[in-house]
Formats: sequence, structure tokens, C-alpha cells
Amino acid sequence: MQTRESCLHADRQDPLARLKPLFSLPPGVIYLDGNSLGAMPKTAHARSTQVIAQEWGVGLIRSWNAANWFDLPSRLGNKLGRLIGAGDDEVVVTDTTSLNIFKSLAAALRIQQRAHPERRVIVSERDNFPTDLYMIQGMIDLLQQGYALRLIDSPARLEQAVGEDVAVLLLSHVNYRTGHMHDMAAVTSAAHRHGVLAIWDLAHSVGAVPVDLAGAQADFAVGCTYKYLNGGPGAPAFIWVAPRHRDQFWQPLSGWWGHSRPFDMAADYRPAGGIRRYLCGTQPVVSMALVECGLDIALEADMAQVREKSLALTDLLIALVQARCQGHPLTLITPRDHGVRGSHVSFSHPQGFAVMQALIARGVIGDYREPNLLRFGITPLYLGFADVWDAVEILKDILDTGNWDQPAFHQRTPVT
Amino acid sequence: MQTRESCLHADRQDPLARLKPLFSLPPGVIYLDGNSLGAMPKTAHARSTQVIAQEWGVGLIRSWNAANWFDLPSRLGNKLGRLIGAGDDEVVVTDTTSLNIFKSLAAALRIQQRAHPERRVIVSERDNFPTDLYMIQGMIDLLQQGYALRLIDSPARLEQAVGEDVAVLLLSHVNYRTGHMHDMAAVTSAAHRHGVLAIWDLAHSVGAVPVDLAGAQADFAVGCTYKYLNGGPGAPAFIWVAPRHRDQFWQPLSGWWGHSRPFDMAADYRPAGGIRRYLCGTQPVVSMALVECGLDIALEADMAQVREKSLALTDLLIALVQARCQGHPLTLITPRDHGVRGSHVSFSHPQGFAVMQALIARGVIGDYREPNLLRFGITPLYLGFADVWDAVEILKDILDTGNWDQPAFHQRTPVT
Repeated sequence: MQTRESCLHADRQDPLARLKPLFSLPPGVIYLDGNSLGAMPKTAHARSTQVIAQEWGVGLIRSWNAANWFDLPSRLGNKLGRLIGAGDDEVVVTDTTSLNIFKSLAAALRIQQRAHPERRVIVSERDNFPTDLYMIQGMIDLLQQGYALRLIDSPARLEQAVGEDVAVLLLSHVNYRTGHMHDMAAVTSAAHRHGVLAIWDLAHSVGAVPVDLAGAQADFAVGCTYKYLNGGPGAPAFIWVAPRHRDQFWQPLSGWWGHSRPFDMAADYRPAGGIRRYLCGTQPVVSMALVECGLDIALEADMAQVREKSLALTDLLIALVQARCQGHPLTLITPRDHGVRGSHVSFSHPQGFAVMQALIARGVIGDYREPNLLRFGITPLYLGFADVWDAVEILKDILDTGNWDQPAFHQRTPVT
Repeated sequence: MQTRESCLHADRQDPLARLKPLFSLPPGVIYLDGNSLGAMPKTAHARSTQVIAQEWGVGLIRSWNAANWFDLPSRLGNKLGRLIGAGDDEVVVTDTTSLNIFKSLAAALRIQQRAHPERRVIVSERDNFPTDLYMIQGMIDLLQQGYALRLIDSPARLEQAVGEDVAVLLLSHVNYRTGHMHDMAAVTSAAHRHGVLAIWDLAHSVGAVPVDLAGAQADFAVGCTYKYLNGGPGAPAFIWVAPRHRDQFWQPLSGWWGHSRPFDMAADYRPAGGIRRYLCGTQPVVSMALVECGLDIALEADMAQVREKSLALTDLLIALVQARCQGHPLTLITPRDHGVRGSHVSFSHPQGFAVMQALIARGVIGDYREPNLLRFGITPLYLGFADVWDAVEILKDILDTGNWDQPAFHQRTPVT
């Protein structure tokens, strides 16, 4: 597409365009950060009013049964499972991605303590999303059983890293910085050949790229609902456990929601059958209920169409930046190969932070990631081809005029 | 108070009566279950609209900074700390009570591994809220280091149970069934005399009874915000760590929110200074934001007045049931002694479940707890003396007429 007119034409042909009106997007904004916090489904406000004013305000404690609050993790989990190749009673929406990593890692290590008791290595990637690494480090420090974390520096090193001393491989399916996507089936198969269990973090893939956990014979998966699933800020995460592993272990965050009969108030923990044993404590109902608004839209979309549009939009973004911003020091770090590309595109720029602030000031909202990365999330449910065209034109203008080099755009908000 | 008129008079004299209009309560309901799910502050709906429609819908990703979402655990924690005798940067609102028990237990055990490496016993009460016991069991099973849980059957056995083999004592300050309240300072002091660290679960006390963690020299505390603090269904919980312990240990649920510089995206975990190291993953912002509505009301109340009214109302409930329901098989299991009574009152009745269903059908909402307990929560912020009078009259009518003995009132909803 070489002109804005051709982009508008593509938007008119887009079978997913019917979904964009289901989201509320502020005027004057091109939102390229839906891979960090997804946009708001228009149903969210009415749903929150229902939960707060009616279910809480009027129903009060009765709503645990009458409004099926207690069942939310399973009901949402079953819906979400359809997006990732999982069956019923294989997914619960609950807690945070970090915590679900802890649960799945504990379970995987316990399984390996029986199968391969001598294995003490957990493998991940150095530029995996940090919380994945931190949770592994926390587990290693807690167990004091001689486990070690082995980090690989490149996806190409994966095969040689999963040797006979490795218990568990924990990877993000799509890398949060580069947008590189692993071949889940191939990597899982390689892991299994070496007796290694595979845990997949789907934070940057669920709702954005096709995922088939059963087909890939994955062991565990976790992910978040507030990115491409548009579940709301900090919305609860999810966990999937392969049915063959599900009943083997009581996971260590064994709170009362995972008990087989929670209201018996028995002193001894007895894990629920099925995936509910991966629940722990009482869940934040309002945030949880909002997840359903985003899920219901995701389930209306055909994933093949989502993938096709995602690749077309990321192709367009890459091509337009190359054509329109040449001469500026932008370096694409996202793979050009469709087979290993997720749904966001990152470019490095020596002044990436300031350039991104200048873009945001002009209404093009992407985000910045260390070091020097401009990151643009492509969300096929509510982004169009002309949006990408307009975003690149604004980027070109900022770079051509040097308008990013203002003191305000260099100022970093300290996070404490 | 022997008449409804005298109750109405007491309501007119009540200095806390000014707070009742701040809550939304459905007409025709006498709500005696605020110790399970607190009532809705009237500000909650407007606050949720602000967070959802404005901060999420319009602000999108920018709200992490612009609306201070990232700071919510600390800001709410500092407010909550004022209710429990804690200073600034000693409390965060985050995750669930169950998870915060896991964090504090891990930290306490780690401290003891240095101070008393041979100790392998964790003490609690058999009728502690089950999730407390389940989390201990999960930790023991995970660590495989020979830890054991010792359960005592009566608070009177406490002193002899905390011997020289005990590492940690984990108690609920107020028992969820009986309403018995421990003397936190005395029990903690006894624990410390034996070299034992004390973790307090404040779920049934925060906002309901005076708590002074610093004065009691407690070691760790956790609790929930959706009971007497009226934070909303399943609202995030909190954790407090004594400043002397706070910087000693990186807790094992070491997600990126607890990192000293989370947005550096470094591969190695380095815990934040202060209580933020007890954070783990991204928090559910909508549910979190609503906690502030309830906290702000709690902070308007004088805790001495709350306690005085709580004792007056529980005294009244006990006296009226004794006077008006005599001849019926109700047995008080809550202590009469003010010094060891929390803010709810429980009676056993051989058909407790059916009696409670009949009460709820008449608009008197308490709850049922195994075995055979009618439990009535007394929330001084929005309950009055005439409410208690009316509730007992309805109870008397149900018992006198035998109206509880209908098939519908015996039917239990299965929880799966």
C-alpha cells in the first residue's frame, strides 16, 4: 500500500472492521499500545455498573451464589481456553501471570522430581519478560535444593541449552521486546525429546496470534488478559495445565478456593479435581467480571483473520517506516519472517525514549522499552491500515523536524 | 435496652450515625454479614466510572503514570496502616490474604533458619480460617524440609504449644467462627519469649476492633479489605511487615512489582527497599481503586467509638436473643467477656443452616458456618441499635412459628 487512499480501501475490505465500534477509543489517538493495555470494550462500563451497583450494592453477600461470582474463574477460563486450543476445565482466570508462573513451575519441578530427580536446571531466555525470570529466581532461592537458572542469549541456542540436566524450560511465546515468536510445537517437541517440561508464557500472544496448546503438546501455560484480550488494567491472569499433569500435584499456593469442598471449612487441604486446584485465594470480582467483556469480543473474531490482518499491518508498518523514514537511525529488531513474528513491531533509535514521548504528545501512543526501543503494538480488532499510515506520517514528521529533541521529551518519571 | 424505643433513642445519640448515609444499603434488608462482604460505599460507583471510562477508556496506558495506578498498593497501604498501628511504608494493599500468608510465612521461616535453624514446627489453631492452614500445608509440602504443622484446639493451650521447637505462630486475631479475639500483645510477647515469630491474620479485626501492631511488637500481619473495610467483593488484601524484618529477605513471590527498578527490565531480581518488595505481579486496578472508597470512610471514624459501639451492639444482640428467644436451642459460642470478643456473634442451632435461610428470606442477612452456626456480623459504621432489635424480633418469629422448616430452606447450593 503506497498511499493513504489504498490504506482506506484496505480498511473498507477488512472483515474485522465490524469489531472496532465495539471499543471505546479517545478521539485524536492512534493507539499502538494494546499489547501493554488493551482498549476498553464499550460494554465494560455497563458491566461494572451491574457488578458494583446491583450485585454488590443490592445483592451483597448473596451475589456469591446468585451472580455466580465463585464460578467466574472457571467460566472465564473455559471461554479463554477456546482461544488457545484448550478444552473445558483446563483453564482458570485467576491471580497474576507472575503467580501462575510460580504455580506451574512448582508443579513442573515436582513432576520432574519423580521422573528425573537429578535434574536441577531451569532454562529461559535472558530477554524474557523479567518477571518470568524473577519468579524462577524466587523459587530457586526458596527451595534451596540446588536449582540453577540457565539463560540463553538467542532463540537459536535453545536446542543445545535443553540438555539432560534440564528440568524445565520456561519461555515467552512472543518476546515482549522484539516480537519474535517461537514455534511452540517444535520447541516443545525438542524439550520433550530431552525429557524437559515446557511452560509457555502467552502474555504477548493470546488473542493476537494462533495458539494451540493441545496441538503443541505443551505442559503448562500462563498469560494475561489485559493486553490483546482487553480485560482492563491489571485484570486477572490465567493458567492452563495439560490434562495429563492436572491431577498429579497439589500446587503450593494451596488456598481455600482450590479446595475440593471449600465451604466444609476442613482443617486439611484436599485439592479440587480439575484445574480449580490451581486457584488460591478470593478473587477481585469487579476486575474479574470485566475480563468477560473483552473475551466476548475476542471470541467473535476469526483467529485466522486476526493473524492475517496482524501480519498485513505489521508488514505495512515495517515497509512504511523503511520508505518514509529513511535516513533516520531507526533499526528494525522485529523479525521480517512471518513464521517467527508476533503482533508488535519494535525499532531501536538512539533517542528512543524522547522520540516516543514526542509521538505520544502527537497522539500516537506506543511505548518505550529499554534499551532505546520504540515498540508498536498491532491489535487487529480495533486498528486499521490508515491508522498505521497516519502513525508513520507523524513519526516521519517528528524525525524530519527534530521535534523530539525538547527537554520535556527527555524527562523520565521516576518509578518508586 | 428493653424496648425498640430505647434502641431508637440510642441510635439518635450515636456519634457514628453520621457515617451510615455514606453507604448504599438495599431497602428491607438488615445486613449482618459485613464481616464477610462489607456494604457498598456510595462513592464506589462514581469511582469505578472514573477508573473505567476515564482512566482506562481515555487515558489508556498513560494512566499508569497519570492516574498513579502503579502507586496504588503503597498509597492505600499507607492509609490502611493508620487503622492498625503501622507507619508509612510498612503496608501494601496487594494480592490475596492467602498469598500474603505465603509471603510472610516464607520470610518468617527464612529469618528463623538463621536464628534457630533446628526449629521445624509451625503452630496455628485447628479452627483458624482454613486458608491459613492450607497455605501452611502448601509451604510445608513445597519445601520438603521436615516442617510440621501443630494445631491447638483451644486458645488456652497457646502458651504450652509455643515451645522451643517452634519457628512460627500464625493466628487469626479474631476467630472467623466464634468471634474470639486474642490479646495480640500478650500472645506475641509469649511467642517472643520462646523465640517464636508471630504472624497475625487480621481479616476479622481490621476496621472492627483496635489493632496496634507496633505496640504489640508483632512480626508480620495480613488481612483483607472486603469485610469491615468495605473494599468490594474480593478486593485485594494487605500485608504488613515489622520494619525490623522488612529488609532482611527477598520474599519468594518475587515478581517485577517488587523489584527496585522494575522498568529497567534487568534479568536479575533486586528487591525494592521497604515494603514494596512484598509486591509481586500487576494488580487489578479497578478492584484496587475501589478499596480507597471504603478506607476513606473507615478513616473518618474514631476507632474508640467504633469499638464502644461494637461492644454495645454485640451485647444487645446477645441479651435480646437470650431474652426473646428463650426455649429455643440457640447456644452462644461467642465470648461474653469484652476483652476477648471481636465484632461478630455466633450461635449454634441444630438446624442452623435452615434457620439462616429463613432469616435471609425475611431480609435479615447473616451467614451460616459449619457446623450449625448462625453468624451475625456487627458493623458499627452502618448498623444501628434498632436494626439489631428488629433482627432479633424476626429471628424470634421464625423460631416461634417454626417457619424455618420448609424444604427450600434446607436446600444447599453445591459449590464446585
